[in-house]
Amino acid sequence: MAAKQNRFILALDITGTFVFAIEGALAAIHAGLDLLGVMVLAFCTALGGGIIRDVLIGAAPPSALRDWRYPGLAFAGAALSFMFYRIIAAIPPMPLVVLDAAGLALFAVAGTEKALEYKIPPLNAALMGAVTAVGGGTVRDVLLTHIPAVLRVDIYATAALAGAALLVLLRRFGLAAKPAAFCGFMACFLLRIVSVLLHWHLPVLRP
Amino acid sequence: MAAKQNRFILALDITGTFVFAIEGALAAIHAGLDLLGVMVLAFCTALGGGIIRDVLIGAAPPSALRDWRYPGLAFAGAALSFMFYRIIAAIPPMPLVVLDAAGLALFAVAGTEKALEYKIPPLNAALMGAVTAVGGGTVRDVLLTHIPAVLRVDIYATAALAGAALLVLLRRFGLAAKPAAFCGFMACFLLRIVSVLLHWHLPVLRP
Amino acid sequence: MAAKQNRFILALDITGTFVFAIEGALAAIHAGLDLLGVMVLAFCTALGGGIIRDVLIGAAPPSALRDWRYPGLAFAGAALSFMFYRIIAAIPPMPLVVLDAAGLALFAVAGTEKALEYKIPPLNAALMGAVTAVGGGTVRDVLLTHIPAVLRVDIYATAALAGAALLVLLRRFGLAAKPAAFCGFMACFLLRIVSVLLHWHLPVLRP
Repeated sequence: MAAKQNRFILALDITGTFVFAIEGALAAIHAGLDLLGVMVLAFCTALGGGIIRDVLIGAAPPSALRDWRYPGLAFAGAALSFMFYRIIAAIPPMPLVVLDAAGLALFAVAGTEKALEYKIPPLNAALMGAVTAVGGGTVRDVLLTHIPAVLRVDIYATAALAGAALLVLLRRFGLAAKPAAFCGFMACFLLRIVSVLLHWHLPVLRP
Repeated sequence: MAAKQNRFILALDITGTFVFAIEGALAAIHAGLDLLGVMVLAFCTALGGGIIRDVLIGAAPPSALRDWRYPGLAFAGAALSFMFYRIIAAIPPMPLVVLDAAGLALFAVAGTEKALEYKIPPLNAALMGAVTAVGGGTVRDVLLTHIPAVLRVDIYATAALAGAALLVLLRRFGLAAKPAAFCGFMACFLLRIVSVLLHWHLPVLRP
Repeated sequence: MAAKQNRFILALDITGTFVFAIEGALAAIHAGLDLLGVMVLAFCTALGGGIIRDVLIGAAPPSALRDWRYPGLAFAGAALSFMFYRIIAAIPPMPLVVLDAAGLALFAVAGTEKALEYKIPPLNAALMGAVTAVGGGTVRDVLLTHIPAVLRVDIYATAALAGAALLVLLRRFGLAAKPAAFCGFMACFLLRIVSVLLHWHLPVLRP
């Protein structure tokens, strides 16, 4: 059972890693970075959130550094983005938004699961899920000296936090790990997609 | 005795957290961030310094993540700043400088105490106190893509470092924890206030 | 034998620390920071890479914080740079490039060694070596709100990664620690110097 749940978390981690690596690589290419910069940004975007989570919950060395296949996956995403840039750049935006939302939801759920496993209290575990989901993109934006998009742009980190919070709440009410993770995933994924389609955003004060 | 000292550190931590959260929230509102950005910057400003300290001294997961009340306190500060922005923004600068100096002194002292508890050598424990005091503000400025104010502006991190160093020195000379912490707190607090009133600043080279 | 190898790593660490501290201090002086800013940037540039490595490989508190002599060395570099700025600024660029390349190679090799010691798998240990070598400069650039030079500029992090990868490969083929470290050091050092002399750079996509 424990082994099965760990394999479930592993599968979530791997899928999200590859999607985020491509996004990091594209941001680096747009910023005019060289091949190494593209690889570093793919690495940070894909694995940064999970690495920050693992360092914070006391799980150092992070899983991304215990296993050479995680960096390998991120670098493969970088290399593919670099080689097939024209093809990837020609993809219309909506499929990328959907893939990104899937990665976001996967990371939020996997991060919350792992934090709970490490005995982090529920509210903070949900925060760790959100950090896992948006931490990599935040590191990418800091390295490109942008104010992190997640602090400015529509319902993104908010969706991650909502999905993570739902997961934690459902587990609290006695639901098993897998259905709770599924509900958290779907909540984050759908909230993100719907908010893009309907141009939802959070309130901003105009001082 | 140990329990009493720990409660003393806890009380220091809680007071500083709330003051810094409001400052982080105000910076986020001024930068035009949305409600989530305001909450994230309140969280980072209030708890970032302590989280960095705990990760560095080997106390992961940080106390701010072991206990849901720390994030709760930071988010409460963010929500209050967002709701009562006009009232808070109308407060004249000097009370805010005093509250900020108190938060700075509290964090420098509490951070140094905790580093000493974790067997960090005295000079480095004083550095960890300064990191606790100014680390959150540094993270806030990096996320807003400003050069951190603590690296440029008058006697701020310097006051934290001076208070932390005095605490360490007095403990070294055999003073008990509480009076040493009190002296360190007052040194940091007064140095900060006096330097603002008298426009003190550190030397700058003009190349 | 173990003690001897540790002393070898220690000697590598100390030499690199001082060179990088001076570079961090000069960057801070050029950016118009005050004396405290100069000390903070010297500290971050000199010790940031090693601190990030130690936190990531699970070696917290980092060696730079267990021993007051590391921060002391960084602050001495900062103070000397501040006092003798005119003399140091008058040094022609090539000696600085050579010293910097030596620091880069020393840190890449020492960082990889330590990661291997902490049972990080070979590919990831080489990454940790590169992080040790360029992490401090990256933190410096982020604090100065520049896109990190290592992501944009010629063969720098690439040289660190190449030296670290060679070390790991040679150990894998059964070479002892010292000759492998020497080969990794020379590969990084020479690749960096040659790439500066011949204006080598990595490919960049122009979207």
